[in-house]
Amino acid sequence: MTPDVNRQITLFARPHGVPKKSDFKLVETPVPTPGEGEVIVRSIYLSLDPYMRGRMNEAKSYAAPVGIGEVMEGGVVGEVIASKNPKFNEGDIVFGYLGWQEYASSNGKGLRKLDASQVPISTALGILGMPGMTAYTGLSNIGKPKEGETLVVAAASGAVGSAVGQIGKIKGCRVIGIAGGAEKCDFVVRELGFDACINHHDEEFAQNLEYACRDGIDIYWENVGGAVFEAVLPLFNFFARMPVCGLIAHYNATSLPDGPNKTPLLMRSVLTNRLHIQGFIVWDYASQQTEFETTMSNWIKDGKVKYREDFVEGLENAPDAFIGLLEGRNFGKLVIQVSANLTL
Amino acid sequence: MTPDVNRQITLFARPHGVPKKSDFKLVETPVPTPGEGEVIVRSIYLSLDPYMRGRMNEAKSYAAPVGIGEVMEGGVVGEVIASKNPKFNEGDIVFGYLGWQEYASSNGKGLRKLDASQVPISTALGILGMPGMTAYTGLSNIGKPKEGETLVVAAASGAVGSAVGQIGKIKGCRVIGIAGGAEKCDFVVRELGFDACINHHDEEFAQNLEYACRDGIDIYWENVGGAVFEAVLPLFNFFARMPVCGLIAHYNATSLPDGPNKTPLLMRSVLTNRLHIQGFIVWDYASQQTEFETTMSNWIKDGKVKYREDFVEGLENAPDAFIGLLEGRNFGKLVIQVSANLTL
Repeated sequence: MTPDVNRQITLFARPHGVPKKSDFKLVETPVPTPGEGEVIVRSIYLSLDPYMRGRMNEAKSYAAPVGIGEVMEGGVVGEVIASKNPKFNEGDIVFGYLGWQEYASSNGKGLRKLDASQVPISTALGILGMPGMTAYTGLSNIGKPKEGETLVVAAASGAVGSAVGQIGKIKGCRVIGIAGGAEKCDFVVRELGFDACINHHDEEFAQNLEYACRDGIDIYWENVGGAVFEAVLPLFNFFARMPVCGLIAHYNATSLPDGPNKTPLLMRSVLTNRLHIQGFIVWDYASQQTEFETTMSNWIKDGKVKYREDFVEGLENAPDAFIGLLEGRNFGKLVIQVSANLTL
Repeated sequence: MTPDVNRQITLFARPHGVPKKSDFKLVETPVPTPGEGEVIVRSIYLSLDPYMRGRMNEAKSYAAPVGIGEVMEGGVVGEVIASKNPKFNEGDIVFGYLGWQEYASSNGKGLRKLDASQVPISTALGILGMPGMTAYTGLSNIGKPKEGETLVVAAASGAVGSAVGQIGKIKGCRVIGIAGGAEKCDFVVRELGFDACINHHDEEFAQNLEYACRDGIDIYWENVGGAVFEAVLPLFNFFARMPVCGLIAHYNATSLPDGPNKTPLLMRSVLTNRLHIQGFIVWDYASQQTEFETTMSNWIKDGKVKYREDFVEGLENAPDAFIGLLEGRNFGKLVIQVSANLTL
């Protein structure tokens, strides 16, 4: 039986710097009923991802910002509980960008049915979803890993980084992770099979990274920016590639860092090492979705790619969990368990 | 008749910042005689190019530095005046990296015969030489111009930039040059056919550039860095490309510019606009030399590509001319006339 109340988390104010819980607002609205051609989805899992920080700002970016008072954007795995759309039946498990809420109506556009019998449905938010596809497409199209090369992966225990490094291993690279804390580094090496993982909280971080990368860096997966990037910059080999996937260290900044202006250091390396730096978002490679899903599913089945999820219970905890994500408090793909997963 | 004395310009000291004339030394040595398999070349034209500033430093780069006391490196067009190499005859006009000197011996490796009947032989140092090939290969392989796109070219009246912009026009781009001074800008628009040229000495430079690029920038040819790049950065369109060919504004720097550290501005644009930034040197595309020579020769013959040379007489004036090059004092491809061109 469907309850009457739909809890939603809306954007209450645009954060100045680090988001506060008060920048979000939990509101209660009626659970929607389906119009002609529509379905109602009960959210089971809500994905929290760093890109959402960008949507909270007004600045020009690759996607429009969330409006004040609007439901926060986010990918959701849920169950169809009512359908007036012939393509969907009650009980279907679907993925869609349905937002931070317990119930959503959809006209079916962008909604994708999941097969709950193959892999846990939460993976559609992580290793088999946007983060996994980000890793797969960015590494293959921009990183272009070759056997024997050194691949360095920032945020190595995270949803994207963990996949990047494991794909790098499959492609024959020497893979060095960078993560925040000994426990994450341990996981990255022991569970994910990276060759080494360097703790960026360590005072000797830059020296340790240099030692681990004694043959230089051929590919750097940029997810972070800031001090992590500064330690990477002197280590690039000729013709190194740098897919720029995210810059989490910058997202909460309210002003530029103090000087000196280090842009010339970066540009000098671009010129003399012939670096290839390229930003991308996963939808730039939308045509590769089927290839990605097939390949990644097989890797998971064959035990070549592992993943870790970090579940937080309750929609009301999404703002705090999201704030923690930007600080690196999560450990693995961060997922809000909004309601029970009855497929288990 | 060959004189006895070979005047050479050697590197006397590594410059700290702006090179001084005292960092160079004019020395006199005997004119070499050819050993078995060798030729002696009388220099007619010596090319001066910004990359030479890098060779004066000790820092790691794509080429080894010139040693203290060694003859400065440089491309030369000259005449074979003695040959014990069956591939070359006296009177042959050749191009080679023979250095800042009046006479050079060579084993023939890297020496290329020129056809003096087709185009002025000095063009082998400019539009039909390294600068022209830099423009051609960097623009086609990294810039990838498409019809209707906006191409912005730094150092637009220089040896490389003038070729880049004209190729951009051939490819159907809207081409905006950036140059230092009204006279150069005038030349770029009236003689070379760019759609506009913005004077970076002007106080309103950034606003003028923004106005000229009202559809944003799809390709930025980076030759300069510094303040020119800072004016370009806010104007990039999605999926813009930036071949990094040189950074002349940085070459004489002895420290990083004052803060704030603007690296995050650059990286944010890379991410949100999905910029493609790539450094290169012309030899990365050595396999395209024949294609370049054929194509560019035809463009010149058809009047589609023009070029301007800035001749300075006398090897002894090379250091001063080179110092001026780094300040933008030249106007067109800078060439030292070392001795008479008897092919004229």
